[in-house]
Amino acid sequence: MTICIYNNQRNGRCDDHIGASIFRYQVGEHPELPAKSVYDGQGRYLIPGYIDTHMHVESAMMIPENLSRAILPWGTTTICTDPHEIGNVMGVEGIRFMLDNAKKSALQQYVLAPSCVPAVPKLESTSASFGAKEVGEILDMDDVVGIAEIMDFVGVYQDGDRMHSIIDEGIKRGMYLQGHAPYVSGKELAAYRLGGPCSDHESATAEEVVEKLRCGIHVNLRASSLIDNLKTLVAGCRNHQWKDMVSICTDDVHAKDLLTVGHINKVVRKAVQAGISGCEAIKLATFNAAREYGFDDLGAVAPGYIADMQIVDTLDGCQPAAVFVEGRLVAENGAYTGPDHKEGDYDFPNTVNIPQIYSADDFRLKAPTSGDTVKIQVIVPRDGNRVLRDTQVMELPVKDGYVDISGHPDLVYVTVINRYGTGTQTTAIYKYFGLNRGALASTISHDSHNLTVAYRSPEDAYLAAETLRECAGDVCIVDNGEATTPPLPVAGLMSQMICADVAAQIEAVQKKLDSMTDGTVTLLATAIMALPVLPGIIITDRGLVDGLSQQFIEQFEG
Amino acid sequence: MTICIYNNQRNGRCDDHIGASIFRYQVGEHPELPAKSVYDGQGRYLIPGYIDTHMHVESAMMIPENLSRAILPWGTTTICTDPHEIGNVMGVEGIRFMLDNAKKSALQQYVLAPSCVPAVPKLESTSASFGAKEVGEILDMDDVVGIAEIMDFVGVYQDGDRMHSIIDEGIKRGMYLQGHAPYVSGKELAAYRLGGPCSDHESATAEEVVEKLRCGIHVNLRASSLIDNLKTLVAGCRNHQWKDMVSICTDDVHAKDLLTVGHINKVVRKAVQAGISGCEAIKLATFNAAREYGFDDLGAVAPGYIADMQIVDTLDGCQPAAVFVEGRLVAENGAYTGPDHKEGDYDFPNTVNIPQIYSADDFRLKAPTSGDTVKIQVIVPRDGNRVLRDTQVMELPVKDGYVDISGHPDLVYVTVINRYGTGTQTTAIYKYFGLNRGALASTISHDSHNLTVAYRSPEDAYLAAETLRECAGDVCIVDNGEATTPPLPVAGLMSQMICADVAAQIEAVQKKLDSMTDGTVTLLATAIMALPVLPGIIITDRGLVDGLSQQFIEQFEG
Repeated sequence: MTICIYNNQRNGRCDDHIGASIFRYQVGEHPELPAKSVYDGQGRYLIPGYIDTHMHVESAMMIPENLSRAILPWGTTTICTDPHEIGNVMGVEGIRFMLDNAKKSALQQYVLAPSCVPAVPKLESTSASFGAKEVGEILDMDDVVGIAEIMDFVGVYQDGDRMHSIIDEGIKRGMYLQGHAPYVSGKELAAYRLGGPCSDHESATAEEVVEKLRCGIHVNLRASSLIDNLKTLVAGCRNHQWKDMVSICTDDVHAKDLLTVGHINKVVRKAVQAGISGCEAIKLATFNAAREYGFDDLGAVAPGYIADMQIVDTLDGCQPAAVFVEGRLVAENGAYTGPDHKEGDYDFPNTVNIPQIYSADDFRLKAPTSGDTVKIQVIVPRDGNRVLRDTQVMELPVKDGYVDISGHPDLVYVTVINRYGTGTQTTAIYKYFGLNRGALASTISHDSHNLTVAYRSPEDAYLAAETLRECAGDVCIVDNGEATTPPLPVAGLMSQMICADVAAQIEAVQKKLDSMTDGTVTLLATAIMALPVLPGIIITDRGLVDGLSQQFIEQFEG
Repeated sequence: MTICIYNNQRNGRCDDHIGASIFRYQVGEHPELPAKSVYDGQGRYLIPGYIDTHMHVESAMMIPENLSRAILPWGTTTICTDPHEIGNVMGVEGIRFMLDNAKKSALQQYVLAPSCVPAVPKLESTSASFGAKEVGEILDMDDVVGIAEIMDFVGVYQDGDRMHSIIDEGIKRGMYLQGHAPYVSGKELAAYRLGGPCSDHESATAEEVVEKLRCGIHVNLRASSLIDNLKTLVAGCRNHQWKDMVSICTDDVHAKDLLTVGHINKVVRKAVQAGISGCEAIKLATFNAAREYGFDDLGAVAPGYIADMQIVDTLDGCQPAAVFVEGRLVAENGAYTGPDHKEGDYDFPNTVNIPQIYSADDFRLKAPTSGDTVKIQVIVPRDGNRVLRDTQVMELPVKDGYVDISGHPDLVYVTVINRYGTGTQTTAIYKYFGLNRGALASTISHDSHNLTVAYRSPEDAYLAAETLRECAGDVCIVDNGEATTPPLPVAGLMSQMICADVAAQIEAVQKKLDSMTDGTVTLLATAIMALPVLPGIIITDRGLVDGLSQQFIEQFEG
């Protein structure tokens, strides 16, 4: 097969609104139509570029232009992103940076306006707060195509004022409303759909997939670097005659996976392994995704469609031999072929504002009474799963007025400090975290990105906090009085380096961390400690919270 | 099955933008959710209301509010209409009337802006002329969702200024661009698609269906009162794994068919007979049609979707037992259950302006030379098909300076008179038209609606024209010096009566006409005589035209 790529010109006029397109003819078949460029496909398949229906750029710890370099070689040519991490840290200005920087990339990066900044206002102190005004302001920016994962499903199905007014901003502009409804079912799911959100990528079971499809909800099959239950999800839709409302997303992908495993093509591969035909899996990742968003010019190799496409050897999510964006070659055999990387020189404000932190004492847990011991609610992972947590009561010694864990090697302190200057913080005790010594700290802490630190010794925690204050936010480990960070100068969330360098630095720091732990603790283990939408126990800067009931709980007994 | 219909209220707030919706629960299952109304489906199927992706209201000779009464009992709840007939006659004001009148109906009537008024400007004299300005003005009206069948495919694929500027009005508003590309193929089809139009309903063969689908074009399977090649069209897509881009339309449906045969359900029935499964045929007529237009709230029975739906005994295009629009019952067992009909009292201007017509002499064909005979290009149906016509040369006698057909019972005169005051007209000779005596005249004459009359005697033609002048346009037969018309006071195109009355009146006049013909001549036989987009011989007020080459041809030889 030989592809001739023609510019989308109508008799010499180039119309920006469509971009390049293609006629599928053999070279020389129409001599009156000179090809703008000719690429020899050598008998392979030409398929559309993949579309990621939901992902967070920040999770890859790269800025948009470098994410583009890492993703394009895998055949993804369009991503629809939710910049809610940087939105929480920097507000609307953070969104603007992501949009501006994305313009430097060949990858088409559509942005959705974060809907839940902060995720649950009453349970934690945060910085940015997006109401209808801010969301509306973002929706009116170029390349913004909808409202991102509407996580406050209770706010939607109970029709709270905040979510109602935010969703209305999208509805009155006729824009896409992305959903997020884990475990939501029955009449609550119906009410959630009725409230506006049209999609979901959070199904945990095949039954959830079936119920959501029957409820008129687009199901985005997800396999991320954090969660991969794709086989289960595919079981929920594999035998459906029509999968019009099924597409694919990656949600969170780490740099290392982008370097070695792939992007949407990885999910396609897994879908094929789970029993969806190759053609159909590709359709989910291209045509169906485009239709979900109402992108009429994406998702097919045909006239009038943007010439985003890839040449592949097999129809199973393999790495493409060549990738084209708007008819221009951007990657070949896994290598990005666009312009070389030039490290940016963005100057970001330091948003780590923790004026109350002066010494290691700030990381001790004061006992509420004067006895020798205290009964305290200790956090424990549920079934060994660090994402969902319960509490159990332990009686711990009190030393100099502070709760002492030195005799319990399976315990750590966890402190969450508001990093936006409110001065609020909470210290709790966590059992079976897996950290043997030192401290693991991060200002990456979903979704508010308050400073979260797990530690055995308050001195190490203090050093970690000081380090993060100085470097304007990051991940930090402290061992033997030495702090190590992989540089993440962009809002403490992203590097300005390219994927390979980011992955190498993360790996080096992770290796150091492994020597301090039982081997199961990732660099981002503290990042999900404070997420109030998780249906278990969480720690925010304002206290311990039961995520399911959305209520604060008392830490001490008696 | 029992359906509980709840109003689309978010905790008591009613949002106009979604309308009524449904929760699918059993009565009493959720006592906290009182049903607004309960309808016992008695174990039958509940399916979405049908959507017609392309039709002309005028073809049914009813105004929109009465069309609604006729269509709803068949399960169609949304139609997307092209009011180009009234647009040609009355300009933008005609479109406005259709929109205003549609608002009185329960049927959702979306309107598309006519793209080709007139169809081919250079070949005939017309009244209204829609350029980019007029189309833009229409696109900005409420309930207008796109540009209607872009028939000037040559203008599109050659990128003529007129079509380019009209299409741009749609593109800049992100609106649907309906195509119309009969027999267009190869690189012309690719260029047509590239120029903007995204659909086609004019395929004649299975191969055309396949090529159009491969070219990224939505294929609207059509079965109208005029053309029905549905079996052939279905053969072109029946075995495709995905029919995402296939939907259904009726184009032109006559009152009699609406009374007895059905609407979209008829096409569904035929599609099932042609080998598409019932579920899939229904999907084409509902979900796929909604997706083609980007109607995210139509085409499914689910929360968040408008509660347009029907209860059916079988999944094969049967007449529904009940039809609901926005959750309200509108028809039961074939009977419209809405408010009674109250005949409108619209006062329309008389647009029949034929000042040059004074006597029967105006309908004689003057010979160009003074001989006893003349060689003349006579129009003949191609293979007995009155839609496509050729010419053949005949030598006919000349009497008193006029061509005389009295000795040839198989010939008629046909005269096309500009009805908008330009004074232009053309008379031709037509062989095998099938009219034995009298005259058949009409101001319904696609698409410019000039007065067209076929006749044996000029006296009868004159009486017909006088009758049409007086009644402001209509269809008229003259026999034995007596003129008969079914009243069509709305622009000479539509009655203000309900379907049963319109059908009865048409049938009565048709019966009279049958007594004057060989039995094969319909009341609208003259209506396709002057349509310049037909690829055969046509007659306009300015002369004989070869529709394929779009050139005038000489009528007389030598």
